[in-house]
Amino acid sequence: MYFMEDTQVARTIQLNDGARMPVLGLGTWKSSHLPRTSLQGAVEAAIAAGYRHIDTAYCYCNEVDIGKALRSKMQQGIIRREDMFIVSKLWCTHHAPEDIPVCLNKSLKDLQLDYLDLYLMHFPVGLKKMGDELYPKKDGRILTSDIDYVDVWKGMEALKASGKVKSIGVSNFNILQLERLLTMCTVPPAVIQVELHPYMVQTDLVEYCKSKNITLTAYSPFGSPARPPELSTGDTDPHKLLEDPVVTEIARKHRKSPAQVLLRYHVQQGIVVIPKSDKPHRILENTKIFNFNLTEEDMAALRGLDRGWKACVFEDIKSHPYYPFV
Amino acid sequence: MYFMEDTQVARTIQLNDGARMPVLGLGTWKSSHLPRTSLQGAVEAAIAAGYRHIDTAYCYCNEVDIGKALRSKMQQGIIRREDMFIVSKLWCTHHAPEDIPVCLNKSLKDLQLDYLDLYLMHFPVGLKKMGDELYPKKDGRILTSDIDYVDVWKGMEALKASGKVKSIGVSNFNILQLERLLTMCTVPPAVIQVELHPYMVQTDLVEYCKSKNITLTAYSPFGSPARPPELSTGDTDPHKLLEDPVVTEIARKHRKSPAQVLLRYHVQQGIVVIPKSDKPHRILENTKIFNFNLTEEDMAALRGLDRGWKACVFEDIKSHPYYPFV
Repeated sequence: MYFMEDTQVARTIQLNDGARMPVLGLGTWKSSHLPRTSLQGAVEAAIAAGYRHIDTAYCYCNEVDIGKALRSKMQQGIIRREDMFIVSKLWCTHHAPEDIPVCLNKSLKDLQLDYLDLYLMHFPVGLKKMGDELYPKKDGRILTSDIDYVDVWKGMEALKASGKVKSIGVSNFNILQLERLLTMCTVPPAVIQVELHPYMVQTDLVEYCKSKNITLTAYSPFGSPARPPELSTGDTDPHKLLEDPVVTEIARKHRKSPAQVLLRYHVQQGIVVIPKSDKPHRILENTKIFNFNLTEEDMAALRGLDRGWKACVFEDIKSHPYYPFV
Repeated sequence: MYFMEDTQVARTIQLNDGARMPVLGLGTWKSSHLPRTSLQGAVEAAIAAGYRHIDTAYCYCNEVDIGKALRSKMQQGIIRREDMFIVSKLWCTHHAPEDIPVCLNKSLKDLQLDYLDLYLMHFPVGLKKMGDELYPKKDGRILTSDIDYVDVWKGMEALKASGKVKSIGVSNFNILQLERLLTMCTVPPAVIQVELHPYMVQTDLVEYCKSKNITLTAYSPFGSPARPPELSTGDTDPHKLLEDPVVTEIARKHRKSPAQVLLRYHVQQGIVVIPKSDKPHRILENTKIFNFNLTEEDMAALRGLDRGWKACVFEDIKSHPYYPFV
């Protein structure tokens, strides 16, 4: 059922546990404000465009819609389960040993799957479990738990051993936390997912992961232009990465879009990238990144834009006593 | 009993709660490896040299010796209690409401005092209480508590209300933690004590504190040249701030020592500074910082040395899941 170009879009890299992960995936964070049918439609459009990797999370509250899209495309015979690489994330309120499988099982049920390809610990910090609250608060303060992520990781290792998740990794860890985890774990994380783009280059982390054979996934590759206003850091500088003259000039030179340049920037470094879009023409555009090469000068110019600027400032978690931990 | 020059050395600035704090103090961290009589001697030498401000902490394990020096100088009639400004710090294992007064009372007993002038929360992170362990660990991992520093601060406010401490503040908070505390507290911190010197300028934090009328105390003003090897970050660059050509050239121009330049750098900005020394001639040298002015060019050149380099990397606390929080 594959078209030729699909295999290109679904190009994979091998993780440190032997599994293979498509370097391009569809991001779905913030897609939850869309009408439900739109997200399902976006995932279906992505699969039609050749995407074989979908990134979601318990806290995105959108796994039911993604599950419907997957089911529909499987019933149409477009994909088999084993063609897809599905990623979800353990939420901070489920860090206790007994809650970890509960969180996974909820995701599996909503996604209508019996295993995930990759499961990530969403954040290194724990939050108290208070019913179904994603951001448990009292008097405007986030309620934290003192469960060490090293202990949470043991639960992640157990999920991998059970076969319900094929690979395990982390998200939003800083380099010191990643290093501490590596020192103490049995199974090293296969993947770390963090914000990466030319305004947030994170050279130290990228080099560290390369040296440890941990695959990076870049989120917000465009600087999250559609992020909700409450996520804006209130900078006067609008940080419009897609309109940066360095990016647009490189795009013009290669007859590509700025978005394609920003995606190519990652895949050319062996970094997985998960652009979000709900527009079929953008979803398709974002796949056309395997037929050109950025020069060393292009890459250096893009890296030269670094300003340590984060698009994603998690307002709810910002009231966590240990923010910023990312 | 004052000599004229003492009043100069004991120059004070007013805190946001109305109290006055001498801008120069004697730091005593890492003095605990000295023979006990040496620390007592250093404090006595400092008082003789005009110091009226001594900085210590529960976790320095040296308050008994400081208490002896204070007692001795009071018995000699050199100082009265009210001439002195004594600072100590609440340790991380004592963040629970019932433990906060216990920690203070231990410091007061050892110091032979019935009140402190300033009490600081030493770190924003909590550690489990396990007997007298300063760094409770299991299997090489620090044992954390989930007590929010906002709750700890309520205990600090209660100590101030009791009169056992005249002013309260924090140490090793980052700007976001300080901002969060300010939003949620009843009594704002009067002081924040952090590492500050020309290799670690922290402009954002300094400007923020100025705007909020919080007095800064700079620790490790010389880049902590005597820090124990285990605190070294293993940089190949030795970061010898006292030997930096920019510092030595400014010193030469003013016929001052590099140390005096590095201290003047702070007091001229209204920042309190607490150099540590156990050598009487250094203790005296460090007081001679009130009879010269650094020019705007000198200040700019010193600030231009900034490299975000921290001398104090807390190896024990580095195994805390949320390190770095400072």
